[in-house]
Amino acid sequence: MNHQKRSTEKRKSEHIDIALNQPVAGTDITTGLEQFRLVHESLPEIAYSEISLKTTFLEQSLQTPFLVSSMTGGTEKARTINRNLAQAAEARGWAMGLGSCRAALEHPETVDTFRVRDVAPTIPILANLGAVQLNYGYGADHCRQVVELVEADGLILHLNSLQEVFQPEGNTDFRDLLSKIEGICNTLEVPVGVKEVGWGINGKLARRLFDAGVTFVDVAGAGGTSWVQVEKHRSKNPLLIQAAKTFSGWGLPTAFCLQEARKLNPTGTLIASGGMTNGLDAAKALALGADLVGFGRSLLAAATQPTPEAIAFQLERIETECRIAMFGSGIDRVERLQGTSRLQKCPLNP
Amino acid sequence: MNHQKRSTEKRKSEHIDIALNQPVAGTDITTGLEQFRLVHESLPEIAYSEISLKTTFLEQSLQTPFLVSSMTGGTEKARTINRNLAQAAEARGWAMGLGSCRAALEHPETVDTFRVRDVAPTIPILANLGAVQLNYGYGADHCRQVVELVEADGLILHLNSLQEVFQPEGNTDFRDLLSKIEGICNTLEVPVGVKEVGWGINGKLARRLFDAGVTFVDVAGAGGTSWVQVEKHRSKNPLLIQAAKTFSGWGLPTAFCLQEARKLNPTGTLIASGGMTNGLDAAKALALGADLVGFGRSLLAAATQPTPEAIAFQLERIETECRIAMFGSGIDRVERLQGTSRLQKCPLNP
Amino acid sequence: MNHQKRSTEKRKSEHIDIALNQPVAGTDITTGLEQFRLVHESLPEIAYSEISLKTTFLEQSLQTPFLVSSMTGGTEKARTINRNLAQAAEARGWAMGLGSCRAALEHPETVDTFRVRDVAPTIPILANLGAVQLNYGYGADHCRQVVELVEADGLILHLNSLQEVFQPEGNTDFRDLLSKIEGICNTLEVPVGVKEVGWGINGKLARRLFDAGVTFVDVAGAGGTSWVQVEKHRSKNPLLIQAAKTFSGWGLPTAFCLQEARKLNPTGTLIASGGMTNGLDAAKALALGADLVGFGRSLLAAATQPTPEAIAFQLERIETECRIAMFGSGIDRVERLQGTSRLQKCPLNP
Amino acid sequence: MNHQKRSTEKRKSEHIDIALNQPVAGTDITTGLEQFRLVHESLPEIAYSEISLKTTFLEQSLQTPFLVSSMTGGTEKARTINRNLAQAAEARGWAMGLGSCRAALEHPETVDTFRVRDVAPTIPILANLGAVQLNYGYGADHCRQVVELVEADGLILHLNSLQEVFQPEGNTDFRDLLSKIEGICNTLEVPVGVKEVGWGINGKLARRLFDAGVTFVDVAGAGGTSWVQVEKHRSKNPLLIQAAKTFSGWGLPTAFCLQEARKLNPTGTLIASGGMTNGLDAAKALALGADLVGFGRSLLAAATQPTPEAIAFQLERIETECRIAMFGSGIDRVERLQGTSRLQKCPLNP
Ligand SMILES: Cc1cc2nc3c(=O)[nH]c(=O)nc-3n(C[C@H](O)[C@H](O)[C@H](O)COP(=O)(O)O)c2cc1C
Ligand SMILES: Cc1cc2nc3c(=O)[nH]c(=O)nc-3n(C[C@H](O)[C@H](O)[C@H](O)COP(=O)(O)O)c2cc1C
Ligand SMILES: Cc1cc2nc3c(=O)[nH]c(=O)nc-3n(C[C@H](O)[C@H](O)[C@H](O)COP(=O)(O)O)c2cc1C
Ligand SMILES: Cc1cc2nc3c(=O)[nH]c(=O)nc-3n(C[C@H](O)[C@H](O)[C@H](O)COP(=O)(O)O)c2cc1C
Repeated sequence: MNHQKRSTEKRKSEHIDIALNQPVAGTDITTGLEQFRLVHESLPEIAYSEISLKTTFLEQSLQTPFLVSSMTGGTEKARTINRNLAQAAEARGWAMGLGSCRAALEHPETVDTFRVRDVAPTIPILANLGAVQLNYGYGADHCRQVVELVEADGLILHLNSLQEVFQPEGNTDFRDLLSKIEGICNTLEVPVGVKEVGWGINGKLARRLFDAGVTFVDVAGAGGTSWVQVEKHRSKNPLLIQAAKTFSGWGLPTAFCLQEARKLNPTGTLIASGGMTNGLDAAKALALGADLVGFGRSLLAAATQPTPEAIAFQLERIETECRIAMFGSGIDRVERLQGTSRLQKCPLNP
Repeated sequence: MNHQKRSTEKRKSEHIDIALNQPVAGTDITTGLEQFRLVHESLPEIAYSEISLKTTFLEQSLQTPFLVSSMTGGTEKARTINRNLAQAAEARGWAMGLGSCRAALEHPETVDTFRVRDVAPTIPILANLGAVQLNYGYGADHCRQVVELVEADGLILHLNSLQEVFQPEGNTDFRDLLSKIEGICNTLEVPVGVKEVGWGINGKLARRLFDAGVTFVDVAGAGGTSWVQVEKHRSKNPLLIQAAKTFSGWGLPTAFCLQEARKLNPTGTLIASGGMTNGLDAAKALALGADLVGFGRSLLAAATQPTPEAIAFQLERIETECRIAMFGSGIDRVERLQGTSRLQKCPLNP
Repeated sequence: MNHQKRSTEKRKSEHIDIALNQPVAGTDITTGLEQFRLVHESLPEIAYSEISLKTTFLEQSLQTPFLVSSMTGGTEKARTINRNLAQAAEARGWAMGLGSCRAALEHPETVDTFRVRDVAPTIPILANLGAVQLNYGYGADHCRQVVELVEADGLILHLNSLQEVFQPEGNTDFRDLLSKIEGICNTLEVPVGVKEVGWGINGKLARRLFDAGVTFVDVAGAGGTSWVQVEKHRSKNPLLIQAAKTFSGWGLPTAFCLQEARKLNPTGTLIASGGMTNGLDAAKALALGADLVGFGRSLLAAATQPTPEAIAFQLERIETECRIAMFGSGIDRVERLQGTSRLQKCPLNP
Repeated sequence: MNHQKRSTEKRKSEHIDIALNQPVAGTDITTGLEQFRLVHESLPEIAYSEISLKTTFLEQSLQTPFLVSSMTGGTEKARTINRNLAQAAEARGWAMGLGSCRAALEHPETVDTFRVRDVAPTIPILANLGAVQLNYGYGADHCRQVVELVEADGLILHLNSLQEVFQPEGNTDFRDLLSKIEGICNTLEVPVGVKEVGWGINGKLARRLFDAGVTFVDVAGAGGTSWVQVEKHRSKNPLLIQAAKTFSGWGLPTAFCLQEARKLNPTGTLIASGGMTNGLDAAKALALGADLVGFGRSLLAAATQPTPEAIAFQLERIETECRIAMFGSGIDRVERLQGTSRLQKCPLNP
């Protein structure tokens, strides 16, 4: 095992361990979803059993409007997590994002820690790369290669500027990236999406990304995992450790990003993620105009179990909560939930 | 004793026990009444002893604008509670709702746990059934029967969608219920009202209910007992137990429902309930336009005592508090309190 | 000592003891002054030593715009308190209110517990009676008599509706009092003022009082002592003890009353009191338009000391704080402080 | 050592000790910067390494838009602090303010505790005097003299009205100071600035100061060190100790002053200080329109170390945080940060 590989592996497994065991939520910041309320409808005039979560994503039909957010790959533990997530996602009809697939390219022997197509034959699977790599030697070929390696239906490029600043030897040259992203979109055969990693994509940037040819945008806003917090726990640089505390509340709340992005992009495919923990939050996000709702760290603990039952239980819980929220609001279809006037800004108290 | 009866009885007595001993108030939600303040009038120019709480309800005159909310029946403990409540209500001139009377119909030997007419000969007594039963075999005949069995002056149909979801084998088909409620209103000889059980009837639904022929609407809003919380304590389903936490703040605050319902229904008979604990809250609710104010769980503990003195004391306390609030506001009649401009939104602080 | 006298004495000394030793502040309510801020002026262009607190009250000139609020009389302890307060007030140039002087009339042997003219020859002294007594046998003659007995410069009639409700055998017939107050104003040779006791006189009532001939109004708002709280500690009636908790937040905040009263009565003499504890609050109240600021319970502890030094120290502290607030705002005269645009609603944070 | 000198020295060293060891932050008041948020830009399209903090101040170019606020001089400990601060400021390109230089004039043997030009040959150094001294015998000659003694590039006159009130024998005659400041500005050969000491200069006063010929204004607002708190710890006067508590929240928040001052003075050179603790706050202040950002007490602890490494580390941390905030906002130059529309009032939550 060469040095660079060992260090990538070490970083990946540290990320998982820290996300599982340390307080990595942003401080003094929330998703903003707590400021919204679905208006209860006492007489729903629907049958609970008839409520459907079905939707479409990337022109595929999907049992639920939910996505497992990009998280991991590259280590043994990551293999377990990915396979658990994939089996559960397949069973329940969720889309699934893989963690950054750079390792798969640079250390081919790790490819199979990413490959889950065998256990998830029908759901959309999304490969993942850091957009900034396009400034560090990556191009369309590499992108195409990772998609093929993991048999993905599409590719997500993630934007993680502040994480790179807080990582030792991070890649912090973000110049001209938009045009390079545009190039990838024009070249690749599969749909390309762009996501943040927890500080949020604002409305204007979402528009610029759609204009550049991106198929979907995942706002990945603040209120959940803060990568400044994660890197703080890994850092040995005292200056960055102090600075990390200053930035633990940085970012744009998920609900803010989502509302702004939907307003400026009425038809673009939007994924809401960042701080999602239950199906009621998901229902609110759908009501705010999301097409899909992504769950990251809140799935992690269950996904580390030896078998997929625990994580499947969590997915089912989230679905049930979303159904209950829909039943309570008198809404039986995802497309009726999206943009519903039944979502109101708190306080409802008159 | 057959199985179904035993299970109904068990459910009923568990409800009472949980409501008495567990934390069943909704979390992160209030009635909204705390946001209103009656403007103090230093020079009331009335005599405290001349203040009258008299009002009329269902064309009957009533000593107070208060109602014991529908709570129980079907078990021995329920019999004690119902008789205590009825005796105190009769003594002090409150209206009284009985708990769901389905048991009385399906298990005739429990009828006398509901019957209180002997100790409450003059006050309005209201029978109670789940509206959703109209989708599960119940019709006008059953409704008429329960009214006669308990010698009631009217019937309340309750809407409890989320409770049914959280109950094992709950009845969750709420399709077409409005037209069935309309049918009952057209057929029954006594007035029919509709109530929630703690998540609130919003203004538009109140209007649709009045249009359907309902005589009165009890908003039964959020801020008091949460039935998700109650069922959580009974549940053995781990998924529902987790989901219950997600929905412990669901619902529309009582004050919100009341204000909206009154605005959209200037003349309909409205009952305010959900989270009422004292006569000052009741006075605010009357000022917001309620015709009657209902008290549920806050009466329960006193009603379980062997004799009616304890619960009569509570009713008297609530009345006294309402009188004091009226004296402090310079208002001596319920009809002047209703819709008074002396109710102001907080903060009064300039 | 006859029974009625003993019971009056007992009540009076209990009031003092409870006010000194029990939590008698209203709950969930503040004066509202914390919502205002005097805008700091870094370059005041005045000399601190030249700041003057001089003002006029009842056509007399006064060293400070401050008043000792009506508190006590009728017992030995009250004598000490009154004499301490009077000596300090005389020394520092505050006006002084006496507690309710009914005892002086009904139990002539207690007169000298009220008489302080010997130690306070020059300051305005104000006698005090409950306005409601005008419905219980009192008339202009009694009012004139108390003023003469205590050699007062004026008479304050206090409005205390809710206190009467919570007192055993309270006098709760407040009918027609305004016209009787008008009668007293027309008949008496000295100025007559009206005050609350801690629930606040609203703007409209202030206007009606000025129209009736009252010379000054003391809003005596909520945010300080709550008489429901005081009477709760004396009560033996379990129903009233429970009800007292319900009303511990009743009343109109001092700042609200003051602002509204000043708006509706641009020229009437207004006293701000209720919850005043320091000279910064007093400066804000003057800025909101008060002519005089009254301090009640916050003076009590110091006034019970054997000699007047402790209370004189408190008065001086309050004056100093008011001067500092004026210096900090660049204002050197009370009349420039009154209605200054330098008072701003918080948050100042932009 | 004469008495006056000993007492000045004692005061100075007490100030340092109290500022280091006692809670001297204002209470119930903040800078207001927490109410602003820089809008995250996921795709900054700049390179982190290319971000520049360069700016100009007093027509000199400066490596950073930062200033060490005026703090000390006159004692041995002050010498260490000043030399540490100066060495670090020189190394990193910060401007530096000296503490009040009155001692240097009145006790010439203390001059060298202020002199740092030898270790800080290139950065702007600012001498400091209390503006109120102009009413106590000081004139242009004294001002010129201190500037020369410490080889300063400019002079700051500080406004500290409330501090003088709380100091024993404070100088509290602030009459006519503006015209005297104007005189100094007209006479001196170096630029003259005016600052507060933590209660804030409001917008109108800033304008009057610029009109009087002042070259720069340092708002030095509330939310950080409160000099009432500092003097409270030194005071032996019980009345002032009590009064100090009343004024611990006095003053105008830094962000409020800055925003108002910038609005009324679009082109004047403005320094933002008061409560600055990190580079994110500094970035927000620049975005609100500051030309320079000053740090006082938050630098003190590190500056007392025997060598300048600790304080240099703090300066670097602040710079790094400012760069990260700029990177996160997609801004690479100080002049683009100033007045940017990327600063938004919280809550961003929609
Ligand atoms: C352990 C962990 C690893 C992650 N790795 C990646 C990654 O490789 N690529 C990526 O785009 N996002 C990654 N993320 C970010 C998530 O996809 C998500 O945007 C972020 O955590 C916010 O969502 P959350 O609050 O639901 O966790 C990772 C998150 C976690 C917790
Ligand atoms: C123990 C208990 C049993 C109840 N049973 C019924 C019922 O059978 N029918 C019904 O309409 N509401 C029922 N309710 C709901 C109440 O009528 C009321 O709407 C709700 O509890 C909210 O009011 P509260 O906050 O004052 O308790 C019950 C409530 C409690 C606490
Ligand atoms: C011990 C005590 C006795 C009082 N007695 C009287 C009284 O006899 N007459 C009156 O008008 N107000 C009386 N008050 C009310 C005060 O004058 C004042 O209006 C009220 O306490 C609110 O002001 P504070 O918050 O500064 O105490 C009394 C207050 C206290 C604390
Ligand atoms: C120990 C200490 C000494 C100070 N001495 C002076 C001084 O001599 N002259 C001056 O203008 N300000 C002085 N200040 C005030 C600071 O310059 C600054 O305006 C104030 O402390 C608020 O900023 P901060 O919150 O960053 O501390 C001093 C502050 C401290 C903490």
